[in-house]
Amino acid sequence: MKYRRHGGRQSRRALRSGNLAPMLPQLTRTLPLLEPLDGDQIEKIDHASMNILEEVGVVFRDPVALRDWQQAGARVEGERVKFDRFQIRELIQSIPSRLTFLARNPQNNVTLGGPHSIFVPMTGAPYLRDLEDIRRYPTLDDLANFHKLSHMLPALHSSAHHIVEPMDHPVPHRHLRITYSSMKYSDKTFMGMTTSGKNGEDVMQMCEILFGRETMENHPVTTGNINGNSPLVWDATMLGALRAFVKRKQPVLCSPFVLGGANTPASTIPAVVQLNAEALSALAYTQVIRKGAPAIYGHYLSTVSMQSGAPMAGTPEISLMNFIIGQLARYYDVPWRTSNTLGGAKTFDAQAGYESATTLMAVLLSGAHYIWHSAGWNEAGMHCSMAKFVVDAEQCAMGYRMAEGPRWDDFDEALAAVRDIGPGGHYLGHQHTQDNFQRAFFMPKLFDNNSIEQWMAEGSKDITKRALDYAKQLLSEYQEPHLDPATDEALRDFIARREIEIPADGGLNEHC
Amino acid sequence: MKYRRHGGRQSRRALRSGNLAPMLPQLTRTLPLLEPLDGDQIEKIDHASMNILEEVGVVFRDPVALRDWQQAGARVEGERVKFDRFQIRELIQSIPSRLTFLARNPQNNVTLGGPHSIFVPMTGAPYLRDLEDIRRYPTLDDLANFHKLSHMLPALHSSAHHIVEPMDHPVPHRHLRITYSSMKYSDKTFMGMTTSGKNGEDVMQMCEILFGRETMENHPVTTGNINGNSPLVWDATMLGALRAFVKRKQPVLCSPFVLGGANTPASTIPAVVQLNAEALSALAYTQVIRKGAPAIYGHYLSTVSMQSGAPMAGTPEISLMNFIIGQLARYYDVPWRTSNTLGGAKTFDAQAGYESATTLMAVLLSGAHYIWHSAGWNEAGMHCSMAKFVVDAEQCAMGYRMAEGPRWDDFDEALAAVRDIGPGGHYLGHQHTQDNFQRAFFMPKLFDNNSIEQWMAEGSKDITKRALDYAKQLLSEYQEPHLDPATDEALRDFIARREIEIPADGGLNEHC
Repeated sequence: MKYRRHGGRQSRRALRSGNLAPMLPQLTRTLPLLEPLDGDQIEKIDHASMNILEEVGVVFRDPVALRDWQQAGARVEGERVKFDRFQIRELIQSIPSRLTFLARNPQNNVTLGGPHSIFVPMTGAPYLRDLEDIRRYPTLDDLANFHKLSHMLPALHSSAHHIVEPMDHPVPHRHLRITYSSMKYSDKTFMGMTTSGKNGEDVMQMCEILFGRETMENHPVTTGNINGNSPLVWDATMLGALRAFVKRKQPVLCSPFVLGGANTPASTIPAVVQLNAEALSALAYTQVIRKGAPAIYGHYLSTVSMQSGAPMAGTPEISLMNFIIGQLARYYDVPWRTSNTLGGAKTFDAQAGYESATTLMAVLLSGAHYIWHSAGWNEAGMHCSMAKFVVDAEQCAMGYRMAEGPRWDDFDEALAAVRDIGPGGHYLGHQHTQDNFQRAFFMPKLFDNNSIEQWMAEGSKDITKRALDYAKQLLSEYQEPHLDPATDEALRDFIARREIEIPADGGLNEHC
Repeated sequence: MKYRRHGGRQSRRALRSGNLAPMLPQLTRTLPLLEPLDGDQIEKIDHASMNILEEVGVVFRDPVALRDWQQAGARVEGERVKFDRFQIRELIQSIPSRLTFLARNPQNNVTLGGPHSIFVPMTGAPYLRDLEDIRRYPTLDDLANFHKLSHMLPALHSSAHHIVEPMDHPVPHRHLRITYSSMKYSDKTFMGMTTSGKNGEDVMQMCEILFGRETMENHPVTTGNINGNSPLVWDATMLGALRAFVKRKQPVLCSPFVLGGANTPASTIPAVVQLNAEALSALAYTQVIRKGAPAIYGHYLSTVSMQSGAPMAGTPEISLMNFIIGQLARYYDVPWRTSNTLGGAKTFDAQAGYESATTLMAVLLSGAHYIWHSAGWNEAGMHCSMAKFVVDAEQCAMGYRMAEGPRWDDFDEALAAVRDIGPGGHYLGHQHTQDNFQRAFFMPKLFDNNSIEQWMAEGSKDITKRALDYAKQLLSEYQEPHLDPATDEALRDFIARREIEIPADGGLNEHC
């Protein structure tokens, strides 16, 4: 088979202009989902989770939540709340099964639920690997760079929040600067910090400045994450943040934090049973706070190596758990969140590639809606890698294409080409090929598929080097999206006021 | 969440003793398959493929095959054969839907078809990246090392054949030495060389020495691959080898060689339509040669970058094609082969990881039975990487675990643990955890999940280095499986005789 190989120049050109693509709309899946369990098995899990909620109960380490539950009619024994399964079912029934996030650029609004999903970058890294692949503490400028890349990469639907921790700014003030950075450098949707009830309230007020209070009554504009403390505990800090968001009808991810085998049973399905009980208890609480408020079934999933105690990713049990949790979320008819591209590699080596791709495939086929940690995650979340960030984002675009499913729209013309070409011919010159090659087969920019001779002539760059070159190029071409100057000033004024009000060294006292 | 992290010593110990695991039995899948098309859509593809077979036809560049087809009642026009769809359907009906390969160690017999699949290493690399990660020409000794690793790695079910091309031996004699190496250094099943009809005949005779002629009448003992020359051509060399195998009732993979967009239409489903017509024509031919002989629906799948002309792997359309071809093979009720871990990376970098893991997931969920190229493939097949070989094999073990599906056998005990532990407790010390941790969650040896401090203390080894250390360790502990000395001598005598008969410099004349 003869075909032309003259990739070098053309692929460099494509790389140069590749950053101008608009954001992809939210994914609309046509590919079927992977559902390992039948209806009876799902009900068996539901039944076991409900037994835990009724008989073991869940600890809410928070006097406000305990009072709320008491008033709602649950049995409160000390910090432990025991629920009637019918109450749980009734409460979660008012959670909308779909929701649409307004972005400040309406073209970037995204819907999730049903067949619709979005990709959201990783967050929370205390280190980064920077544009020179050096591992160091991040700054507000580094965070801004990640927000800029999130803005430019078409398969990322959100700029998230603290992709990296801006270590050059005092902890008690960070939530303000992080939120501003998300809002300022991208006009996609973003996440809201949930580091305490008060911080959550600050984020809500900044959202009001950007979107208006009334808009927020009718539309989600951000997302908060509420981590559980497995097994079967929710803490005051997280519950305070939950209330700040839910009172304003802003959705939270109710995310048990699973280290399978350490804080769950050492068994796949039973771990899911426990996680499910935990998630349901928090989802139900959102509806105690405000009936009809959007909420998202969440979780953070890893399994723990019993040899080393370290969390693992990309393992078969995590894929299975994702498939099963997807079935449960659909059973309860609530949107759900999972984590993408997790992994424990220390550098952007092949381990990182295997872990991330395995997770991406599992996540896509499990039907997750809010696909968080979709770019940059490495070293068990200890660092966000600039190189991996842009590669992961391209992988999301590839997964997106797969999940859209096969197309039939050129079936007859393409088969006419088979007759035209006949045995032994070749297709590159055929009109159908010329008309369709751009969309026919995904051509990843950051994979090198040229011959080794060409690759060597271009400097023997591995994917880390190529990805960093691409990230630098994107940042050099970044254009800040327009933000109304009065709104910008109002946001800055709010931050300035709060930074005077909150002691830079004593903020932790305010964290509840 | 507190948990112990003391991985270093224990994981090194596990690494040392990890090579003694016996071969995993063939995979028995319980996980459902990913089926993007409904019955009507499958019939639409079948109909379109049959139209091609009837109206366009397939070229068989081989006088023997043309004569066979004429006698079988097909319309032969020059080199082009046009088939009646009813004849095609009737012919392929006699292909067994399952088959069991006898290995010379009966404990390593493997069944494929239905829910059963096997992993087979890559083959055909003209270069290797060796134990020092140096890219160079391979020798017979290198090939032997790959056969030894195939023997030791539990998720690999075959030692394949020329994993790398032994460049230190004359081309016309290679098939003999390759076959001997497969037979000698591993007692798993292996592949047979199909570089010509005569070479295929030599392989059959060596199999007779090892297994006996009668055994081969009733049992597959090896596999031959027959590549098509897409679009719609089968060549004499391959057809000669096909006949050598099929006459002895040894299965062949009927593998159209697809470079999507170059030798197929630039469209996913139409490319499958053409591939399907090609595969069916060769499958049918096997039954013309010998009714009831086993045969396997095959293909080699890549898409071509229209920017560079290079073949690509791990792309969304390849995953979709795998899902769809799986549905077609089940529709025709024949076992099928696909390719695993393909990719174009030049080194064992993150690109290689993404490509391989994406492909592995797609392949597992497509239900492929003969999962070829499951270890070592890199640089579009131009080199086999020692490092990647052992990592891929571990990935196959992980995929195997996922495809087995979730277990329910400790459901009640694990949930009793949830009651014992209660909110806020931890599971590591619980009896259920102690009893189950070994099998609960897969613990990959070659992924490093320790802290960066530990990783640095152990020498900051990336996965390439760790994998090469592991490969060296395995090879140092390799024990050759017993081979009856008389059989061994007979094989060596046969090779010696044939190496006198076949001119070392003129073998190509014999290649049909």
